[in-house]
Amino acid sequence: MMVQNDGVPGGALQSVLERLAQGRTAAIDRLFEVLAIPSISTDPAYHESCVQAADWFAQTLREIGFSAQVEPTGGKPMVLARLRNRDGTPRPHVLFYGHYDVQPPDPLEAWTAPPFDAQLVEDPQHGQIIVARGASDDKGQVMTFIEACRAWIHATGAPPVDVTVLLEGEEESGSPSLAPFLAAHGESLKADIALVCDTNQWDAQTPAITAFLRGLAFSEVTLTGPSRDLHSGLYGGPAQNPIRVLAELIAGLHDDQGRIAMPGFYDGVSDPAPAQREAWQKLGFDIDAFLGEVGLSVPAGERNRGVLEQLWTRPTVEVNGITGGYTGPGTKTVIPSEASAKFSFRLVPGQDPDTVIDGLHQFIAARLPADVSVAYRGEGGSPAVGFDTTAPVFRAAAEALEAEWGKAPVIVGSGASIPIVESFRTQLGMDAVLVGFALEDDRIHSPNEKYNLSSFHKGARSWARILGALGSKDDR
Amino acid sequence: MMVQNDGVPGGALQSVLERLAQGRTAAIDRLFEVLAIPSISTDPAYHESCVQAADWFAQTLREIGFSAQVEPTGGKPMVLARLRNRDGTPRPHVLFYGHYDVQPPDPLEAWTAPPFDAQLVEDPQHGQIIVARGASDDKGQVMTFIEACRAWIHATGAPPVDVTVLLEGEEESGSPSLAPFLAAHGESLKADIALVCDTNQWDAQTPAITAFLRGLAFSEVTLTGPSRDLHSGLYGGPAQNPIRVLAELIAGLHDDQGRIAMPGFYDGVSDPAPAQREAWQKLGFDIDAFLGEVGLSVPAGERNRGVLEQLWTRPTVEVNGITGGYTGPGTKTVIPSEASAKFSFRLVPGQDPDTVIDGLHQFIAARLPADVSVAYRGEGGSPAVGFDTTAPVFRAAAEALEAEWGKAPVIVGSGASIPIVESFRTQLGMDAVLVGFALEDDRIHSPNEKYNLSSFHKGARSWARILGALGSKDDR
Repeated sequence: MMVQNDGVPGGALQSVLERLAQGRTAAIDRLFEVLAIPSISTDPAYHESCVQAADWFAQTLREIGFSAQVEPTGGKPMVLARLRNRDGTPRPHVLFYGHYDVQPPDPLEAWTAPPFDAQLVEDPQHGQIIVARGASDDKGQVMTFIEACRAWIHATGAPPVDVTVLLEGEEESGSPSLAPFLAAHGESLKADIALVCDTNQWDAQTPAITAFLRGLAFSEVTLTGPSRDLHSGLYGGPAQNPIRVLAELIAGLHDDQGRIAMPGFYDGVSDPAPAQREAWQKLGFDIDAFLGEVGLSVPAGERNRGVLEQLWTRPTVEVNGITGGYTGPGTKTVIPSEASAKFSFRLVPGQDPDTVIDGLHQFIAARLPADVSVAYRGEGGSPAVGFDTTAPVFRAAAEALEAEWGKAPVIVGSGASIPIVESFRTQLGMDAVLVGFALEDDRIHSPNEKYNLSSFHKGARSWARILGALGSKDDR
Repeated sequence: MMVQNDGVPGGALQSVLERLAQGRTAAIDRLFEVLAIPSISTDPAYHESCVQAADWFAQTLREIGFSAQVEPTGGKPMVLARLRNRDGTPRPHVLFYGHYDVQPPDPLEAWTAPPFDAQLVEDPQHGQIIVARGASDDKGQVMTFIEACRAWIHATGAPPVDVTVLLEGEEESGSPSLAPFLAAHGESLKADIALVCDTNQWDAQTPAITAFLRGLAFSEVTLTGPSRDLHSGLYGGPAQNPIRVLAELIAGLHDDQGRIAMPGFYDGVSDPAPAQREAWQKLGFDIDAFLGEVGLSVPAGERNRGVLEQLWTRPTVEVNGITGGYTGPGTKTVIPSEASAKFSFRLVPGQDPDTVIDGLHQFIAARLPADVSVAYRGEGGSPAVGFDTTAPVFRAAAEALEAEWGKAPVIVGSGASIPIVESFRTQLGMDAVLVGFALEDDRIHSPNEKYNLSSFHKGARSWARILGALGSKDDR
């Protein structure tokens, strides 16, 4: 038997891909079946539809050989399914995460067809597209993985790794049941790696792995000056105004290069590898479109740092809110007793939220003038996530994607945290490979959500390849 | 007949002062009579009492020879009384202003005696004091002037100047009827000088003339950055945050010496005369007590400028209120679309409110980064008042006060505007001499308001001397 580079019998992957090709019509039928279930988690009127969608996924997974249960929670149920090696030999174990709930389809009148009656439509740019709520986010993406598993099972008897599937039904409504569920089922869910299919490709031709997620640290700062609001005529001049002091603190947080001026703030922060930076510069990211969409035109922030580099790899501090003194209509000439601001930091790997908050306290303490006191509240945060993309599991996934797409995946970041990834790290101590086949123009959360038919098919092929690569006996 | 320096027959003033001495008991009785009327203007339940107080003053002024009317307004009536030279010879004409309304006495239980049943009480520090609501503010002060007129009339037939008395009944409730009344009666009220008795002495031994009142200019500034509130994770870094821009503007308004950094802001602003500054330094103003009362300890503001100099002669800018972004409980990591602040400037003579507002616009325009726009609203102001204290009328009043108190009056300022003074200047083109005999510890607006008996008697003597001095034929 011929053995490929990835250690899985070479013919096996080939037959899996052939199986996917033969089963395309049936796969589309299955996806359309589940797209017909209006599993809108945020609207209590659709609770039964959510349960129905969970049942549908559990049943579908059982059909192809998983042991699958619908697990109740305080909210929408979880689908939890397992497929283990029959002979009990230890193998790599992956936990796949996705969600079966969808956003409400409103406004209905903006849809060209009913949102829960999926259609195959010819699109001038993308060829055939699947139009329905959930086509992309996240039922279509989840089905790419399940179809890959089905093909492996039908073609070879089993995928080359142990697989646990966890599908939640509250991703679109804040995931309130997720943390308790992970806490209750922790050890049984823990795998070697999590696989998440809820993100985008770079573009229609280029796959992506999301490997950097910024962390967060936040603090609400209240400055107190005079013991009461003062008449600005009778006290203006010799009396401290806490709004002015707060403004000076905020203004002092950045230097003239846009860098954060807190001592030690960048300790432990690494620059992206030159090759990584160069790769991003070559992506041709459309800065004008990105900023223009929100009424901006000129990148602010750190000088000499690209927009993507800033969003994915650079820490920031923002004032999210500020208040002090008289804010009603008209004029009231007070020198207020208090002023406060909510600060939040986006963090990158190498930064500890507590250390950053300590640094803010020291920065303020060093600048606080006489007669102004400071109080802090609502502090907290979570560290950034930065996966080592040279680790074997990422290399295997990247090579599998390159084999499918003919080009290496872009290693991208997300400026914001993705809660499930943090939960997997915090609660289960598990890294995640985030690979998705959605596109920027999929209109998720909007009318006429779509998923390119090619995204669906090539997504399933991509997962088939990734499963093969992860099952390799070559542990590189 | 001997003629004094002040040009009034010397014996005349002497006999006026003797008349005041003889009439002390009756004067106290008259004051106690009007203190018994609860003329609380802010409480509609006391409307009739306000009318009664107006009637009392009109009747009292008629008794001593004034032609006096109670003039209706949209609110509380005005008392308007005139005393003219019988032979029609042109003489100096003074307009005396005061108010007959009082603050509510609450909390009643904090009074040692009923607030509208005036008592003479022995005070360890001040000797005999009159305790009642309005004893100082402003019935007691008004009666010092009326008693001086009475003594002049009884001793010599008439004061040496034409006198118009204007008493309002809404000073403690915002004076809504004053501007329309002045507009309607303007020319008939216009005098050579206004006399106002509603201010303090420097201390119990030292008289004061208030000659500087800061003006005001105000503007509400709104900055807009992104077209909507942004997710700070997805945009933090390259997106402008208008709170930060606003904070930088505010921080830039002052230099490191505490001076306002707007170009041209101090154009036309004069330093106080060295002698004036020296006089203030010698006053021994208790900075610790002034700041300590409001929870402060270290004078802020301009370096190398004394507290009194700052309050009375230096312009300031304060942020009276600021708001932007999320200000509710907890954390919301937005980059807000908008942030706004209310600015107000205290102005000194030589500054024009419109020019200052223009300067603010220019200051902001020069610092506004790309993608941030500014809007202004609620703008306005009024210039400072600074009387030329070397003018004859001020010198006459100062010399009269010195003759009574044995020391020259302190020329003081007020950090805040006094609306009646502005109205007299704006609507009647008339300067005002502000002389009052109240003391810092008179507890005006508080329980157990008091007026020293010596303030009352020496106040009447002071006005008697000032009227004599103003009636001088020597026009210096």
